[in-house]
This record gives sequence, C-alpha cells and structure tokens, in this order.
Amino acid sequence: MYDIVKDAVEARDFRRVKEIFSKLEEADIADLIQGFHDNKDVDAKDITLLFRLLPKDTAAEVFTYMESDMKELLINSFTDTELEDVIDNLFIDDTVDLIEEMPANVVQRILDASDPQSRRQINMILKYPEDSAGSIMTTEFIYMKRSMSVGETLQKIRSLGVVKETVYTIYVTEADRKLIGVLSILDLLTSDDDELIGDIMEPNVITVETTEDREFVAAQFAKYDYVALPVVDNENRIVGIVTFDDAMDVIEEEVTEDFAHMAAVEPSEESYFKTPVFIHAKNRIMWLLVLMLSSTISSVIIGHYEAAFATVPLLVASIPTLTGTGGNCGSQTSTMVIRGMSLGEIELKDFFKVIFKEFRISLIVAVILGAVNFARICIQYHSDPQVIKLAICVSLAIVAAVIMSKLIGCILPMAAKAVKIDPALMAAPFISTIVDASTTLVFFNIALLVFGIKI
Amino acid sequence: MYDIVKDAVEARDFRRVKEIFSKLEEADIADLIQGFHDNKDVDAKDITLLFRLLPKDTAAEVFTYMESDMKELLINSFTDTELEDVIDNLFIDDTVDLIEEMPANVVQRILDASDPQSRRQINMILKYPEDSAGSIMTTEFIYMKRSMSVGETLQKIRSLGVVKETVYTIYVTEADRKLIGVLSILDLLTSDDDELIGDIMEPNVITVETTEDREFVAAQFAKYDYVALPVVDNENRIVGIVTFDDAMDVIEEEVTEDFAHMAAVEPSEESYFKTPVFIHAKNRIMWLLVLMLSSTISSVIIGHYEAAFATVPLLVASIPTLTGTGGNCGSQTSTMVIRGMSLGEIELKDFFKVIFKEFRISLIVAVILGAVNFARICIQYHSDPQVIKLAICVSLAIVAAVIMSKLIGCILPMAAKAVKIDPALMAAPFISTIVDASTTLVFFNIALLVFGIKI
Repeated sequence: MYDIVKDAVEARDFRRVKEIFSKLEEADIADLIQGFHDNKDVDAKDITLLFRLLPKDTAAEVFTYMESDMKELLINSFTDTELEDVIDNLFIDDTVDLIEEMPANVVQRILDASDPQSRRQINMILKYPEDSAGSIMTTEFIYMKRSMSVGETLQKIRSLGVVKETVYTIYVTEADRKLIGVLSILDLLTSDDDELIGDIMEPNVITVETTEDREFVAAQFAKYDYVALPVVDNENRIVGIVTFDDAMDVIEEEVTEDFAHMAAVEPSEESYFKTPVFIHAKNRIMWLLVLMLSSTISSVIIGHYEAAFATVPLLVASIPTLTGTGGNCGSQTSTMVIRGMSLGEIELKDFFKVIFKEFRISLIVAVILGAVNFARICIQYHSDPQVIKLAICVSLAIVAAVIMSKLIGCILPMAAKAVKIDPALMAAPFISTIVDASTTLVFFNIALLVFGIKI
Repeated sequence: MYDIVKDAVEARDFRRVKEIFSKLEEADIADLIQGFHDNKDVDAKDITLLFRLLPKDTAAEVFTYMESDMKELLINSFTDTELEDVIDNLFIDDTVDLIEEMPANVVQRILDASDPQSRRQINMILKYPEDSAGSIMTTEFIYMKRSMSVGETLQKIRSLGVVKETVYTIYVTEADRKLIGVLSILDLLTSDDDELIGDIMEPNVITVETTEDREFVAAQFAKYDYVALPVVDNENRIVGIVTFDDAMDVIEEEVTEDFAHMAAVEPSEESYFKTPVFIHAKNRIMWLLVLMLSSTISSVIIGHYEAAFATVPLLVASIPTLTGTGGNCGSQTSTMVIRGMSLGEIELKDFFKVIFKEFRISLIVAVILGAVNFARICIQYHSDPQVIKLAICVSLAIVAAVIMSKLIGCILPMAAKAVKIDPALMAAPFISTIVDASTTLVFFNIALLVFGIKI
C-alpha cells in the first residue's frame, strides 16, 4: 500500500491517491502520511497537498491520528479557513489534546480558529489538573429532561446528525444539569414512542468526579464494561463524558509509565523513535547515578570484610550468585505486588496478608534454591578441603537472601503506595540495590562464623 | 455498603438485601457476594440464597463478574432449571469462558443446560486455538441483507429486544453471510426510513480472521477506536464479533503476562490471592534455578582472577557497582524495546536503527557514569596509594559495561521476537545474568592491564 501511494505521489497522480484514500480507514491514512514524513519519502509541501485531498470530515479524523510533529507541520501550512474546518470537525477533547501538545504560537492560532462556545469549553477542560477525569473528558454528549418522550428523544438525536460514539448513551438531567439517570440508545429503540424517558431510565448511575484520577476512571471501564462514563462536578451536575477509547489510551499510557518506572527510566511523552537520543539519555541517567552511588554501600560492606575473603578467596566467587538470586527474588515479588495493586487485586489493607503469603512462598523457594546450591558447590569445588563449609555458608546466605528479598519486595511497593509514591518506582533496580547490600552483609557474617574468622 | 448488607444477612432481612441490590451495578453486587465468600463472612448456603434474590437477567450478569471458585460453588448448588435460566441469559462468549474455567463434571452440566443451537455455537468457539480471535468472539451480532431498508432494519432491532452493546454495529452480508459492509446504529437513526442499508453502509470493513492472535485483535481496537470488530473465516464470512470490553480484558491479561515474564515468573491464571502459595512458588522457582545456576559462569570467571584481587583486594569491592550498573542499563533498554514492540512502535525491520540509537545513548550515559564513578573512587579511597589506578580501572569497566549491556538489552528481545519467543522473557533477570558475567570478565582484564598483574 505504502509503495503504491508513494509511486502515485511521485507520478503526481493525485486522483489515484484520492481513490486509494477513499477505501482506507482514517487511522491507516494517518499512518501512511506519517510514514511518508518520517521516512522523508515525500517532502513537506506534498504532505500538505496529500492532506488537502481528504474530504473535510475525514481530514479532521485523520488529523487526530497523527503525531505531534505532523500536526504542527500541517497547522503551520494551513490557511485560517482550513484550520477552522479541521478544528470545527474535531471533538472538544481532541482539540484540548492538540493544544496541550503544541507550542504557544500554534495554540493561539487554534484558539482563534475555534468558535466562542468551543473556546469556553476548551478553557474549562484545560483548567482541570493534568491527570484528572476532567482533563480527558469531552463535553459533547446528549442530555435530555426526564419529561421528554422516547419519540421526541429519537427525533432530537436524528436531528443532531452523526455524533459518533458519544450518542450511544443518553443522560437524563433535572434543572441545572443535575444527573438523575441514564439510558442507552437501545433502551430508546426497544420502548414505545410515547413512554417518558424518566420512566425507562436507569436511576443508579455510576459517575466520576472531574477531579478523580484518570487511572481510576479507566479502571471503572474495565470493571463495568461501559461505552462511556459521565463526569460530574461536586454538585452532581454533568459536565462531560469519558468514552471507552479514551480510557483505553489512558490504560496504555499508564502501563507504559509503569514499565518505564519499573526499569528506572523517566517516562517519555513521545514514542521510542520520536524521542531524541539526548532525551533518552537524560531520562535514564538520573536513576543510574542514584543506583550506582548507592551501590557504594555494598562496596563499603565488602571492603569491611576484606579479611574474610583474604582467608577464603572462594567466598568472592559466590557474590554474583547471591546478589543475582536475591535481586531476582525481590523483583519477582515486587512485580507481582505492583501489578496486583494496579489491577486492584491487592489493596493496602492486605499488607500483612501479602507479607505472610510472600513469607510462606519464600520458605519453599529458599529451601529448594539452598539445597540445589549446596549440591552445586559440592560438585564444582569437590577438590577443595573446605568445600562443605563453603557450601553451608553460601546456602545459608541464599536462604536468608531469598526470604529478605521477598519481604523487601512486597513491603517497599506497598509502603510507597501508602505515602502516595508510584509503587512502580520500587521495582527491580531499586530493590536489587538494597538486596545487594543486605545479602552481602548477611553472607560475610555467616562466613565469619562458619570459618571462624576474626576481623 | 459491605457491612450494611452483611448485617442485613445476619438479621435474615432479605427484603432489605434485595432492595440494596436493586440499587447496585451488577459488577458491584458480584464484588459484594464474592467478598462475603472470600472473607468467609457468610456461609455457602446463604451465598446461594443471596444470588437467588436477584432477578433472572441481573443474576446472569452478576454471575459473569464472579470468580471461578464462586461460579463453581453456585453451579453446584443450582437446580437444573436455575442453571438453565442463568445460561440462557449469558452471552455465548461468556458461556465459553465459563466452560474453559470449570472442571469436567460441571462443564457437562453447563452443556446440558444450553439449548441445542447455543451448544453448536459453543462447540464451534471451543475449537479455535486458545489465543485466537475465534476464541474470544461472541456469536451474537446483528446482520442484515443489503436490500433491507432503514425502517425495516430499525423494526427488526426493536423486535429483538435488548441485546446490549452487540447491537451498536450492524453488519451487512450477501448470501452465505459474506461480509460486504458495516453501519452503526447512528447511521440508521440519521437516515430516512426508506433508504436501503446497502446504500448507506460503509463498504470498507476492518475485519480479523478467526485464527488471528487475540493480542493483534486487541491492538486493532486501540488503533481504530471501534466498539466491535467483525471476525470472519477465510472466505470472508462473518462468524462472530469481538467487543471492546473483551479487547480491554485481553490487553489487561497480556500486560499482566508481560509483567510476569519480565520478572521471570510463570504467569498465573488466577489473581494474586486466589493463587495458592505452592503454585506461586512453583511459578517462580524454575527461572530462579536457571538464573542461579547460570550465575556459576560469573563465579568461575571471578575464581579465575583470584590472583588479581589477592593483589588488589579493593577490586572486589567494586563488583556490585559494576554488575548493578550493567544490569540496570540493560534492563532500561530491554524494557523500552519490549514495550515499544508490544505497542507496535518498534518493528523487527528497525533492528539496526534501534542498535544505533542505543549505542549513541549508551555513549552519553557511559561517559557520565564513568566520570562520576572516577570522582567517587578518588574521594572514597583517597588515602590509598593506588587510588588513581583503581579509579581508571573501574571507570573504564563501567563504560564498557554500560555499552555492552545496552546493546545486549536491545539485541536479545528483538532476536527473541524474530524466533517467535516472547520478548518479555529477555528482560532484566536474564539480561543481568549475561551482563554480570561479561562485565566481570572485562573488568578483571582491564585490572590485569592497569595494575600489571600476571595470572
């Protein structure tokens, strides 16, 4: 597909391009044009030309699927009328997203191109805190008085024309837009025309407040399987709705953020390739520095026990096994707990339940790893006269490392959550550093005892 | 809420319970009853009683939100008629999910309680491979001939009664159920009654094949923002649809699986608390054993260079810093690449682009970490006569470790994907083990050179 369109553009056969576009989904057209731009296969001027081939309503939707750099390029090449056409056809929440991505001079042009009513709504949404329900909602939804009949309501929907998915649910309000009920378009279709919507509506409405965290909002979608959720202010007046596709985007972003945090990387706003090398380095260096410098603690501990490994050099050879195993055990637990908390399976009140569970798991795991390691050392160093002592010493340390690391691995993320830090920050890298130090300490103390070394 | 209902149950005031239930969402009723069961606050007999308080259609929906153990308990206490009522009110895909979770004797009862037509559809879906589009689709959807008018179609939908979200999209078919178009219920509402649906339908339909991987199917939802996607066989005959809520479940499960793999844990079918301690231990032990035994390589390397740290004991103290930093750098890169691949931002054809990008990032990061580490050693060991040599040696090793680990961190997940292994398995734990060994090797060789030690 890509090559066919590219050839057509090169041959200046725009009728052919138009024909192909008419058969594609908006998201795919956006991908195609974005690809031409990213690969520099088509120059900026022709990109705008390609975009102008699209019918007005398609153009606006294609536009929403593009990445920031393309959007900026297009806006800068649009005439005022063209920009107005696109903005007119955007949903308010898409316009808000656009404004948040663009530099100040472009933002001004967008606001100028919006009609006064949209501008008011945009400004309202922009005022909500960044990760709140208010910031991801759209203000385009259908609400009716309870005294309207089914027939009147259907008539009104028909007269509004296509408003996409926002129309699957109709909200029933009193004076002041106070939300009192909800019904789906199917309820309308399967009821008689002269019934009142107040009589067929569902009066128990699940709502979210404008200030609610967007992650919580997204979780409600996963829980209730709704197409849209109404957003209300603190007096239960409906001010917007969040649709399932926005919730899916939020989930995707939050998961990506969790992955980044768990790998000790500052999350990036842009995709992997759109993020420049320098920004990637910047996002990674801070945690690496912190973790590298904290590993000094382990090195101080090891330095302190120099006498131990001067006497029994083989002790040193076991350090990677111990710290590696401890780190892996800790990251297993912390990952399970972090994921369990974001799925809502584990709550803060389960603190002691989790600790007790991890303690029992760690006992089983510790005994098996200890035993296998004992055997491994006996085989590997069978010719060494001190092999049994070494095996005892390393295996005991493994048992301790496993138990400690599993406990640290569940306590730290839950403690972070309790003090409102993202639990994902308490993942593998952070826990490894703590586990490294404590494992080394325990190991050398066991070694001093077993080998009877004095320092 | 929990305590109010619990008190009402204890007071045997079931009218009150019924009244409260009538005001709750199905998902919340399920949570409540599940909670009573999990906390053993209400005995099994009363659980069934609570369930019997629900109206038939509500009961079926509440049932779908419950966990396997509750479902099994309920089915075992149902009479045949009760079971039939529930199964009748379930969507086919929910019945299939139920069958997949239940032990064989319960499955037989479920199949017996289904009507012959449903049984045929259930058996069809059960035949699809576990992670395919066919296995997550439902066979309840609306399809019409292109020669039907808008008015007739609306009439038909009205007569079908409420079929929930599966009715937002209407599929247009030829003979043999060959899919030729799609339209939304909104298109119907905003068109004249006497128009033909063949004339207003959208002929370019995005479909997925029954054998398509369910992760790919879910990704299509994130891309196109659809409420439902049609599933077709290899002759483009529509056999079912996947709805957005099922796609959200798939995304959630796949992400959970990725998290587990990245932490070197076998994914569990059940939630954290529902998984017994023994199964948790079993899911974790295999990778821990493999990783522990592979760390033997590092210990052999260290053993080999005994002469080096016998001469300069401080070398040992730097091992945790080196392996820790290498492990963290590797896990940063592998996590970014793994996530980028599951979001579709990074593809296999980008192999060299990624390597080049990571190489440039690693240069920046390596130089900064090396320099800071140099300063750290100079300060920490300033009284040691060999401090400069030590600092040179450790900092060079850090530079090498960062570059190596970033390259390993991007090559391994992409290589895994190329040979169809889950890239998430090539995450932190696995990469750390490899990075540990290679870092140690490089470190001691640099040390031999810098300190002029012969072994």
